Amino acid sequence: MHSIQQYRKEFITYLEQKIFTKEPATLYDPITYILGLGGKRLRPVLTLMTTDLFGTDYKKALDASLAIEVFHNFSLVHDDIMDAAPLRRGQQTVHEKWDLNTAILSGDAMLILAYQYFENYRNDTFRELAQLFSKTALEVCEGQQYDVDFETRDDVTIPEYLKMIEYKTAVLVAAAMKMGGIIAGASLKDQNYIYEFGKNLGIAFQLQDDYLDAFGDPDTFGKQLGGDVIANKKTILYLLAMQSGNAEEQKQILDLYSIQPQDPTEKVNTVKAIYLSSGSEKRTKLEIQNYTQKAFDILTMLNLSEEKKNVLREFGEGLMRREV
Amino acid sequence: MHSIQQYRKEFITYLEQKIFTKEPATLYDPITYILGLGGKRLRPVLTLMTTDLFGTDYKKALDASLAIEVFHNFSLVHDDIMDAAPLRRGQQTVHEKWDLNTAILSGDAMLILAYQYFENYRNDTFRELAQLFSKTALEVCEGQQYDVDFETRDDVTIPEYLKMIEYKTAVLVAAAMKMGGIIAGASLKDQNYIYEFGKNLGIAFQLQDDYLDAFGDPDTFGKQLGGDVIANKKTILYLLAMQSGNAEEQKQILDLYSIQPQDPTEKVNTVKAIYLSSGSEKRTKLEIQNYTQKAFDILTMLNLSEEKKNVLREFGEGLMRREV
Repeated sequence: MHSIQQYRKEFITYLEQKIFTKEPATLYDPITYILGLGGKRLRPVLTLMTTDLFGTDYKKALDASLAIEVFHNFSLVHDDIMDAAPLRRGQQTVHEKWDLNTAILSGDAMLILAYQYFENYRNDTFRELAQLFSKTALEVCEGQQYDVDFETRDDVTIPEYLKMIEYKTAVLVAAAMKMGGIIAGASLKDQNYIYEFGKNLGIAFQLQDDYLDAFGDPDTFGKQLGGDVIANKKTILYLLAMQSGNAEEQKQILDLYSIQPQDPTEKVNTVKAIYLSSGSEKRTKLEIQNYTQKAFDILTMLNLSEEKKNVLREFGEGLMRREV
Repeated sequence: MHSIQQYRKEFITYLEQKIFTKEPATLYDPITYILGLGGKRLRPVLTLMTTDLFGTDYKKALDASLAIEVFHNFSLVHDDIMDAAPLRRGQQTVHEKWDLNTAILSGDAMLILAYQYFENYRNDTFRELAQLFSKTALEVCEGQQYDVDFETRDDVTIPEYLKMIEYKTAVLVAAAMKMGGIIAGASLKDQNYIYEFGKNLGIAFQLQDDYLDAFGDPDTFGKQLGGDVIANKKTILYLLAMQSGNAEEQKQILDLYSIQPQDPTEKVNTVKAIYLSSGSEKRTKLEIQNYTQKAFDILTMLNLSEEKKNVLREFGEGLMRREV
């Protein structure tokens, strides 16, 4: 086994080799740009690690890991248009640095490029990877659409919200891991277990992202604290508060979520207080533990040595501590 | 062999069976909408016809033909955003009827759906179809990007223009036909010949589209006559006029292409007169004949009966007469 750092280093070297600008530069420059902005490269690292765990040279998974990362960045480019986001990883988004049309078209090209990286695998592996990829990519689009739809709905249920984050975020983590299983020729059972592990961990991670937005440590949480509250975003904390809170708490949240004050400090503090008083904060923590535990429970069923299961457990714990 | 009408009818029946709205409706409704707007279904018909020509039940090609049509409509949805087009086939474009975000995301989903239709083929056919599709789809993106780039360039050469229309339009026609060859198990030679036939016919068709925009019959040409001149679009007529025209003609065109008068009648008439006097009109006709002839020359090399070659020849002639 290798370390996360080794996978990441190997991946970045491969990325830099494979992603280069060709003609027309106006199409390919933005692709090089967005892929060069960095990030934790979590998804491709997972593909490499899973391949390694199932006993196959992880370098065989470099093309699949590249497909996953290029797809992930495609979704960022198009999502950033939809969110009218000016910045991505502290740099200009593609539609800001270039323009709308460039961001649409370069994004499209990235989606196609992702498929092309699977061409380096033999027939049955190629098919399995491409099919899993298509299924996952479509779910990511559906998740994004649910997220957009939820913005204008006031009757979003907790199960709907969980399905949205599963599709928008967790299935790609799950597929990244399953691809490692496919490349390593793991049994179908193990492929499905590792998929479920990734999916539940992905849901736990996203719920924790909601949690940390309100209750995180400003020194370690990467984004602006309270950002979701300021943007009136319906997170798990919001939905649980609306469910568990008393009439007064519900009314207060609804009122606060209908305004966007110049100085949001008081709004954020009041909403956070309601998250605590309504029990939403506690229930959110329980949900996070619940999904993390589900992921770890699945590990016991995997046909892998205890040592290797520990690698996955430690990865999961590191991820939830935001250390990976 | 069957008639074009039969292929089209069979295709439309299949399309209506396969394309249905599922959840989230906000993602899938626009897909059903754009695919229901009609059109000549030229590309899927070509896939079905080519399969039939190479001696295989054309119904086996229905999924591939659907992939081609869904991809083509994906490119229309995203191109219409880029062109800020309000109408498509006389109806509202997706970004007009819904909004920008919907048009982006539904388009993305269509690109992925197109790949999924290939999953109904066996391993080696699946791979060949998916690889040809990825290559073609990327070229279509590149062609679209060249088209965008050319808008703000004043030094576009004739070879560059020909490459742009080859990528933007002709390779998809070529790939639609080659897919028929792949599904029918035609020899690689024949697959490549049929690809080249489709490509050259596609280029001829697009050049003729430029020609008809200025010199077509207003009763049969589907679009507004002179539309390219009004929009200052650099067509083959424009580029050849700038190449063959005398200094005075060149200056006049440049001047006219820098304005957008309320009543464009005089502008259109003057530009058309220069296309005639500069010899551009004649040279354009020659180019169209040249590419049509190239396509027909390739037919002689195909390992098909004379009768079947005649089907392709008649299809090509019908297409160039705008009768298909």
